[in-house]
Amino acid sequence: MTENGKRWAYDDFEVGMVLDLGSMAVRTEEIIEFARQFDPQPMHLDEKAGEASVLGGLSAPGFHIAAMMMRLMCDGIVLDSTSQGAPGVEFLNWRRPVLAGDTISLTMTVQAKRPSKSRPNLGLVTVRQDLSNQRGERVCEMVSTVMFLKRNGGEDR
Amino acid sequence: MTENGKRWAYDDFEVGMVLDLGSMAVRTEEIIEFARQFDPQPMHLDEKAGEASVLGGLSAPGFHIAAMMMRLMCDGIVLDSTSQGAPGVEFLNWRRPVLAGDTISLTMTVQAKRPSKSRPNLGLVTVRQDLSNQRGERVCEMVSTVMFLKRNGGEDR
Repeated sequence: MTENGKRWAYDDFEVGMVLDLGSMAVRTEEIIEFARQFDPQPMHLDEKAGEASVLGGLSAPGFHIAAMMMRLMCDGIVLDSTSQGAPGVEFLNWRRPVLAGDTISLTMTVQAKRPSKSRPNLGLVTVRQDLSNQRGERVCEMVSTVMFLKRNGGEDR
Repeated sequence: MTENGKRWAYDDFEVGMVLDLGSMAVRTEEIIEFARQFDPQPMHLDEKAGEASVLGGLSAPGFHIAAMMMRLMCDGIVLDSTSQGAPGVEFLNWRRPVLAGDTISLTMTVQAKRPSKSRPNLGLVTVRQDLSNQRGERVCEMVSTVMFLKRNGGEDR
């Protein structure tokens, strides 16, 4: 536990560590709701249009997939951590469609870590996220760098 | 017009072209709704927690910002194009917070284009998206590559 009651601080991440961050079902109505609001292309709004598209079915918009990954990251680690947010995404690849009825699972791998030069109480952790479907096919991968507070304000490091 | 009635095909993009893709208001209730579903961190859910955070107010989740950019891309170009989707994002940087009450505007710049090697009817366009707020401050930038069908199936090229 950190002093603010969180499980994960910068100090707790080790390069090479692999964490299983759980899974979620992808529902038709959630795809359509996201698509209506943010990405109203026919293959994300309508089953028949999805089936007729190269994606082969009603498919989740790319940023809906990324948002679901964020939810799995939140529930699996971020909400129980000293996270201070992420400055950005290094890359994001959509490798296969995520279709209505799929179940997606997220794995996170720690690729690198380094203390902040400007803020001694903070460190940066580079994480790779791999999202798979129920057949074990990798559907999306993303690498980003997340800022975490150190334990004890970094005083013992 | 393309043969399927769309304004934009691969042929119509020129390297260096800059397109204004419009703007949208960012509303409190939309931030909270997105955060509840995908990124339930306190600074995205609650005004007081947002004001107490480094972000300085109720701030849109990073993938909510990306999703709003996608909506501006859809309304400004994608829905009236031969887009076949994007394989991924090359990078995405969140440079400043997007706060409730902000108005965000998107500009798209064509950085590169090349015909597909494997599919003669298709080409790839690398686009840079720059999102600014009502004070003209750049809040987010993203580079991605989008696939577009060519006019006439690429027959006249």
